[in-house]
Amino acid sequence: MAGRDLNIGMIGYGFMGRCHSNAFRTAPNFFDLPRRPVLKAACGRDAGRTQAFADRWGYESVETDWRRLVEREDIDLVDICVPNDLHAEIAVAAAEAGKAVVTEKPLARTTAEGERMVAAVEKAGVANLVCYNYRRMPAVTLVKQVVESGRLGRIFHYRAKFLQDWTISPDVPQGGAGTWRLDVQAAGSGVTGDLLAHCLDTALWINGGIASLTAMTETFVKERTHAETGRKQAVGIDDAAAVLARFENGSLGTFESTRYARGHKALYTLEINGEHGSLAWDLHDMNRLAWFDHRVEGALRGWSSILVTDGEHPYLGKWWVPGLIIGFEHSFVHTMADFITAMETDRPAGPTFREALETTRVCDAIIASGKSGAWETL
Amino acid sequence: MAGRDLNIGMIGYGFMGRCHSNAFRTAPNFFDLPRRPVLKAACGRDAGRTQAFADRWGYESVETDWRRLVEREDIDLVDICVPNDLHAEIAVAAAEAGKAVVTEKPLARTTAEGERMVAAVEKAGVANLVCYNYRRMPAVTLVKQVVESGRLGRIFHYRAKFLQDWTISPDVPQGGAGTWRLDVQAAGSGVTGDLLAHCLDTALWINGGIASLTAMTETFVKERTHAETGRKQAVGIDDAAAVLARFENGSLGTFESTRYARGHKALYTLEINGEHGSLAWDLHDMNRLAWFDHRVEGALRGWSSILVTDGEHPYLGKWWVPGLIIGFEHSFVHTMADFITAMETDRPAGPTFREALETTRVCDAIIASGKSGAWETL
Amino acid sequence: MAGRDLNIGMIGYGFMGRCHSNAFRTAPNFFDLPRRPVLKAACGRDAGRTQAFADRWGYESVETDWRRLVEREDIDLVDICVPNDLHAEIAVAAAEAGKAVVTEKPLARTTAEGERMVAAVEKAGVANLVCYNYRRMPAVTLVKQVVESGRLGRIFHYRAKFLQDWTISPDVPQGGAGTWRLDVQAAGSGVTGDLLAHCLDTALWINGGIASLTAMTETFVKERTHAETGRKQAVGIDDAAAVLARFENGSLGTFESTRYARGHKALYTLEINGEHGSLAWDLHDMNRLAWFDHRVEGALRGWSSILVTDGEHPYLGKWWVPGLIIGFEHSFVHTMADFITAMETDRPAGPTFREALETTRVCDAIIASGKSGAWETL
Amino acid sequence: MAGRDLNIGMIGYGFMGRCHSNAFRTAPNFFDLPRRPVLKAACGRDAGRTQAFADRWGYESVETDWRRLVEREDIDLVDICVPNDLHAEIAVAAAEAGKAVVTEKPLARTTAEGERMVAAVEKAGVANLVCYNYRRMPAVTLVKQVVESGRLGRIFHYRAKFLQDWTISPDVPQGGAGTWRLDVQAAGSGVTGDLLAHCLDTALWINGGIASLTAMTETFVKERTHAETGRKQAVGIDDAAAVLARFENGSLGTFESTRYARGHKALYTLEINGEHGSLAWDLHDMNRLAWFDHRVEGALRGWSSILVTDGEHPYLGKWWVPGLIIGFEHSFVHTMADFITAMETDRPAGPTFREALETTRVCDAIIASGKSGAWETL
Repeated sequence: MAGRDLNIGMIGYGFMGRCHSNAFRTAPNFFDLPRRPVLKAACGRDAGRTQAFADRWGYESVETDWRRLVEREDIDLVDICVPNDLHAEIAVAAAEAGKAVVTEKPLARTTAEGERMVAAVEKAGVANLVCYNYRRMPAVTLVKQVVESGRLGRIFHYRAKFLQDWTISPDVPQGGAGTWRLDVQAAGSGVTGDLLAHCLDTALWINGGIASLTAMTETFVKERTHAETGRKQAVGIDDAAAVLARFENGSLGTFESTRYARGHKALYTLEINGEHGSLAWDLHDMNRLAWFDHRVEGALRGWSSILVTDGEHPYLGKWWVPGLIIGFEHSFVHTMADFITAMETDRPAGPTFREALETTRVCDAIIASGKSGAWETL
Repeated sequence: MAGRDLNIGMIGYGFMGRCHSNAFRTAPNFFDLPRRPVLKAACGRDAGRTQAFADRWGYESVETDWRRLVEREDIDLVDICVPNDLHAEIAVAAAEAGKAVVTEKPLARTTAEGERMVAAVEKAGVANLVCYNYRRMPAVTLVKQVVESGRLGRIFHYRAKFLQDWTISPDVPQGGAGTWRLDVQAAGSGVTGDLLAHCLDTALWINGGIASLTAMTETFVKERTHAETGRKQAVGIDDAAAVLARFENGSLGTFESTRYARGHKALYTLEINGEHGSLAWDLHDMNRLAWFDHRVEGALRGWSSILVTDGEHPYLGKWWVPGLIIGFEHSFVHTMADFITAMETDRPAGPTFREALETTRVCDAIIASGKSGAWETL
Repeated sequence: MAGRDLNIGMIGYGFMGRCHSNAFRTAPNFFDLPRRPVLKAACGRDAGRTQAFADRWGYESVETDWRRLVEREDIDLVDICVPNDLHAEIAVAAAEAGKAVVTEKPLARTTAEGERMVAAVEKAGVANLVCYNYRRMPAVTLVKQVVESGRLGRIFHYRAKFLQDWTISPDVPQGGAGTWRLDVQAAGSGVTGDLLAHCLDTALWINGGIASLTAMTETFVKERTHAETGRKQAVGIDDAAAVLARFENGSLGTFESTRYARGHKALYTLEINGEHGSLAWDLHDMNRLAWFDHRVEGALRGWSSILVTDGEHPYLGKWWVPGLIIGFEHSFVHTMADFITAMETDRPAGPTFREALETTRVCDAIIASGKSGAWETL
Repeated sequence: MAGRDLNIGMIGYGFMGRCHSNAFRTAPNFFDLPRRPVLKAACGRDAGRTQAFADRWGYESVETDWRRLVEREDIDLVDICVPNDLHAEIAVAAAEAGKAVVTEKPLARTTAEGERMVAAVEKAGVANLVCYNYRRMPAVTLVKQVVESGRLGRIFHYRAKFLQDWTISPDVPQGGAGTWRLDVQAAGSGVTGDLLAHCLDTALWINGGIASLTAMTETFVKERTHAETGRKQAVGIDDAAAVLARFENGSLGTFESTRYARGHKALYTLEINGEHGSLAWDLHDMNRLAWFDHRVEGALRGWSSILVTDGEHPYLGKWWVPGLIIGFEHSFVHTMADFITAMETDRPAGPTFREALETTRVCDAIIASGKSGAWETL
């Protein structure tokens, strides 16, 4: 099992801190990795909570200042699982300290921030990754494989949505630990950077670049109490965003994201229509892939529901037996397994910071178009 | 359009009287028939209701005694849509009068009754049909075609269910116009003859004969008020029946039917598993057929949901355009169109009385096994 | 059955001519109508085909010039089932002749044409209807009822799509009997007027007016052979259209329509998200309605799949029994039944020409925005 | 995190060895446990493979003789993940050595073996559990909670199936590491003990005891090569089994299991129908529960698809956020978390050996009835 240790320094202990920790901890039980991830240090501002997190996950030590963590010689990889407003500063410092850097998506709040980050990791020549985990849902990876094989022929349409409903109540606060995603200062944008960014990363990966777009954004609840100050403040984020796009390959894209779609918890859906076939997927039933093959003989042609659990499906050979599904967090396991494996090769696992910058660029265009009402060229 | 008239005498004006009338009336608008069905006479015991029914559907005349109808020279075809206890007597008389005879399923209450009916129509040499309409749901017809093509290879399993929930309340009466199906005298049996008979007819048609079976039957509500007398009476029918069967081709069958499955209105489902593929269908989504083709290449293999609405699908070329579904009553239109077409040929449309007798024979075996607990050989 | 005759003059014998004829012929068998529809005359340019159509459906006479039909004193209602470029002229003439006028959707090719039609029917004071049949799919009617009841609370999102795949091949011609929908001269527009118009009619009916919109339109296949001339010609229609819209009630709308979505035959889907619940429907499974009720107690809350076949569901009390579905054409039966019933009252069945003009106005804005790239205000 | 260590001795390193190891390793990251599971020793006959397994999962030591493991003083809990023919001997020895004992299901090959095991653990007074993991799929646990709440009212029907397709080819061998489940000597029975046992454990837990049953069993492939000897041998297991049962509460049960249902990988489905509602679940979509509540107002009543991912759902509060699903192996995590927690209380986590013996008793009755054709009373 595994060679040299890979010492992880984890910054943040929230939802994503747990996902990433679980991924590093679990990956070597299922995947053959060239280096053995070691949970070396957990870092958070609250000493007590950070210690509890470290105890829970088996981190060997604790830091309360990310600058100290970044400087530690025994850390090989810095993983950034804190709100978006800290991504750039930490990542740049980590790169400058020669660490491999992983950050939870999105890369940054803005293209400008992202560009600084790309420059830093490329200058330092360190391995880097933005954790757009959905690429490594096996069914999504399979979409990528089918599209790349050319089986769909010319692509006409790509559509994706990410629908949630957890902010409908005006009593949900903004800011603070659990709700920083509603605070424009911490998050950069609302659903665009949080949810649509996932849809966009997958779309760019599978269907290539977006040439131009127009968008509609809306803030349904105009004021919310700040979780820390207790003061009512104007809401600066987009509660919902919808986008019309033209891809560079001539296909049309539609994207939508909202936290006001009652009944949908985390409904990320995507569909791609080509000349000879179509593929559709949704996160709620993430182990299934819908596939329409126009070449099947007439009377028995239909949409096929593929239960993506067989040994020949991406990543599945490492898990259980056909018919037994995996869950959300496995996409993080795959991501970290791929990243660690790629660190030892000259072909990095994606999306790198540079690749992910493109998604941030598209997000910025969406926000801009939402304000101007005009088409934005990318 | 169409040649000679085919004069219909309809006995019964209930649910099935309406279905059959609609079928005769609609068939020539969509199918090219060798004879033109004419709604000549409607017959029922209640003169007023029979007249209203005749007015509604355009029957030219009315009778209140089925014996008179059967004797009328201007009637070519007698269609029996009354409770099961009258099937045998009317059918025998109609056959003796030289009429073509259609009866709503089941053929009869018992094998003995059915044998008399078969003898009568065969002696008279008249066209005859039991209206097991589900054979001509396009998706079910497609099942038959695929199985007959041999694509499934060796068959291992056949399973079917027909689940309803409308008799759960003990306040539902037995007997009378709307609830004669709960009266063992009128119906012969409960769910076995009413619902399971449909499953069995399809199974025998698609998968061949049943060699032996064992069954469990139950009457959950032991007493019900009679709708006409108002008196509490013991319930004589089976409320639920479940069957294990061995088909002559070596495959195993499981069948179940009940009117106590809360939430299921008319959930007739069937599935057949063969060496190389499987097919599954359900009545609630009757225009879809689920198809698993094991020969499809590995990673993209799955259950295909075929929307059976294309021109190349059975019967569909006569209706609308792809994607636009048809409904329950269309199966009756197909049945009557096929029957009228077959009348002019030497290959009768099935199931004939003789074919349908086999289903009644199996029903009798189920009732017998339900009482004895032993396997019955057919 | 029923009172005075209502003499129908049907213009057109194609797909829609069949649907409307079936509706008039079937409606009185299931609904109690104040007037009895009589198939008085069928009209088409090709005498032979028109006669065959008349024979098939039982029309009493035939005309080959719509002007003659419109002038006939024995015609009460003119039903226009011909390509869109003839709607205005025929409808105006029929109204001037004092006939009730039904036209298949869309009202007209342009707002200008539509305004002439509205003026004509209102001046003449004749009953008028545009046959947007999907309003009377029972599940869609149920959506309307639930929304009107206020149960959804504040509405945040409305989204609809109409996806087909039948024009992907560049070998499909334009123009002529079967493919006039691809000829901009005959149709006025492509998917916008043909498919999106359905989505828009339902949306305006259920969710109120659209205040502004921006659109993207595309023509994937630039040249097609004309079915009649055999000559290659530039394609003038929109093959695909996608729309972002703001409704007057503050909710956001997204609409998309295409004939290049491989695997989708006639996938009209709609969804509406409100504060307290959501509803979703799709045409391929038209007898089901998806309903999410946020007020249901926590652990058992989910999306409910309502099989819309019970007696208490819109229109269903007139058909069969619970669990037995109806088909596409039944929506036309409901439309004609409602229209004939409403003719005898002072509350017209919708959409009237005036109501349907709004949909045409939105279609025009979509085509305009597709060209300009700018938001259009309505 | 956590108190005293709980030293695990794992016997077996196959599919189930991996599942159980993952469960012990992961449970403390998500659940608050009174004792900390420590992977103390892994045991298998093949020293090399056992060592590799130990390295992969972090076991501190390795044994190649289970007797030595059982005797080790530093082992608190013996977990038996080897073929069924070894369960009894190991479990009895472990109990006699005073260890807590967990065994993968089924308890034993026969009731006689099982009774010895029950006697041993009860005499020794050690904590014991049979790992019927499906009880702790959150949706299944929710079924149990709803049924126990009495919301379904009187129960009429319980039906379950477990369908696979991996042994259809006669080239699949029997015996050996990967295919011992096809060897009657090692497994005790075929699908009955392997698959139906799961269905039965859940059924008995949720719906109470089975009073009597009749069964049909079949061996489709009569001879298979033994994986180790290379010799053709008669197949002694049941390839398929179907059961009719009467529960003690008066409801009817139907059960079926096969490895010859083409297209189904691990399709465990269950459904329970009560007077006021029904519940249905299937393993392929294990995070969903279908729920029909008859008390919902009429027009909006339907089958609700509950995405069981909310904090208020069983076990889910410990995992991610609403909408994000978990996978197959999580049911083992829940099982071990519950077992370890219950060890410190006087209310054991089920099923204990004694409870699981009932399932083995029913399995024996199925095999017996499959041979005799008669009803068996339990």
